[in-house]
Amino acid sequence: MSHTIANKEKLLLRVKKIKGQLSSLEKALEDEKECFKILQQISAARGAIHSLMSEVLDGHIKEHLGNHVSEDDREKEILNLASLLKTYLR
Amino acid sequence: MSHTIANKEKLLLRVKKIKGQLSSLEKALEDEKECFKILQQISAARGAIHSLMSEVLDGHIKEHLGNHVSEDDREKEILNLASLLKTYLR
Amino acid sequence: MSHTIANKEKLLLRVKKIKGQLSSLEKALEDEKECFKILQQISAARGAIHSLMSEVLDGHIKEHLGNHVSEDDREKEILNLASLLKTYLR
Amino acid sequence: MSHTIANKEKLLLRVKKIKGQLSSLEKALEDEKECFKILQQISAARGAIHSLMSEVLDGHIKEHLGNHVSEDDREKEILNLASLLKTYLR
Repeated sequence: MSHTIANKEKLLLRVKKIKGQLSSLEKALEDEKECFKILQQISAARGAIHSLMSEVLDGHIKEHLGNHVSEDDREKEILNLASLLKTYLR
Repeated sequence: MSHTIANKEKLLLRVKKIKGQLSSLEKALEDEKECFKILQQISAARGAIHSLMSEVLDGHIKEHLGNHVSEDDREKEILNLASLLKTYLR
Repeated sequence: MSHTIANKEKLLLRVKKIKGQLSSLEKALEDEKECFKILQQISAARGAIHSLMSEVLDGHIKEHLGNHVSEDDREKEILNLASLLKTYLR
Repeated sequence: MSHTIANKEKLLLRVKKIKGQLSSLEKALEDEKECFKILQQISAARGAIHSLMSEVLDGHIKEHLGNHVSEDDREKEILNLASLLKTYLR
C-alpha cells in the first residue's frame, strides 16, 4: 500500500490544518489587520506546506523507487522525481 | 493606506485560489490518487504561497520602512522584518 | 561603522571557510569520489553560504534602514533591499 | 561511468567559478565595500551553488537509482538520497 494511502488520515489532517491557516489569513486580510501579522501568517502556512512536501517526498523516494518496484515503473518514477525536484528547487 | 488594504481584493483572490489547490489535494488524498500526483499538487500550492509571500514582503518593505513612517514605528518594523526573515530563510 | 566593516574579520573567516569547502569539493571531483559524497559537500557549502547571507542581511536591515540614515539613502536602500529579496526568494 | 566523472571538467569549471565569486566577495569585504554590494555578491554565489546542486542531484537520481544498479546499492542510495533531501530542504 502506498505511503500516501497508509498515512491518509494523518496527511488529511495536515492539509486541513493548512486550510485553516489560510482561512485565518483570509480573515486577517478582510479585517484589514496590520501587514506584519499578515506576513507572519503567510510565512507560517508556507512553513507547514514545505514540511508536508518534505514528508511526502521522503515517503515517495523510499517507496516508489525501491527493489519491489517493476523496472518500467522505476524508470518512469525516476524521471518524474528528477523533473519535480528541478521545479521545486528552482 | 497599507498595501495589504489597497490590494485586498487581489490578495484575497490569491488566498482563495491556494485554498482551492488544497481542496483538490485533499480530494486526491481521499481518492487515493497516485503519490506522484499528490507531490505535484503540494509543490504547486507551495509555489503559489511562496510567490504570495514575495509579493506581500515586497509591499511591506516599500511601505512600512519608508520616510513617511514615524521613527518609533520604523524601529519596530525593522526588528519585526529582521526576525521574520530569519525564520523564513532558515 | 557599517556592520560588514565592524564584523570584517569574522565575515572574512566565514568566506575563507566556504572557499575551503569548495576546494575539498574540487578535490573530490578530481579524485572521482562517489557522487553522493560530492552531493553532500555541495549541500554543506550551500548551507554555509545561505547562513552567511542570513547574517549579513540581518545586519543590513537593522543598519541601513534605521532612523540615523538620511532620507535619500533610506529610499535607495529600500528599493535595493526589495529587489535583492525578489531575486533571492525566487 | 558516473555522471560526476563523465562531466568532471564541466563541474570543475563551475566550482572554480564559484571560488572566483568568493574571492571577489573576500576582496569586497577587505576593501570595505558598501554592504549592499556584499549582499549581492553573496546572493550570486548562493545562486550558483544552488544551481550546481540541482544539476548534480538530477544526474544522481537518474543514474544511481536506475535499473542497472544492484539491489543492495539501490537500497543504500535511496536512504542516502532521502536523508540528503531532508537536510537540504529543511
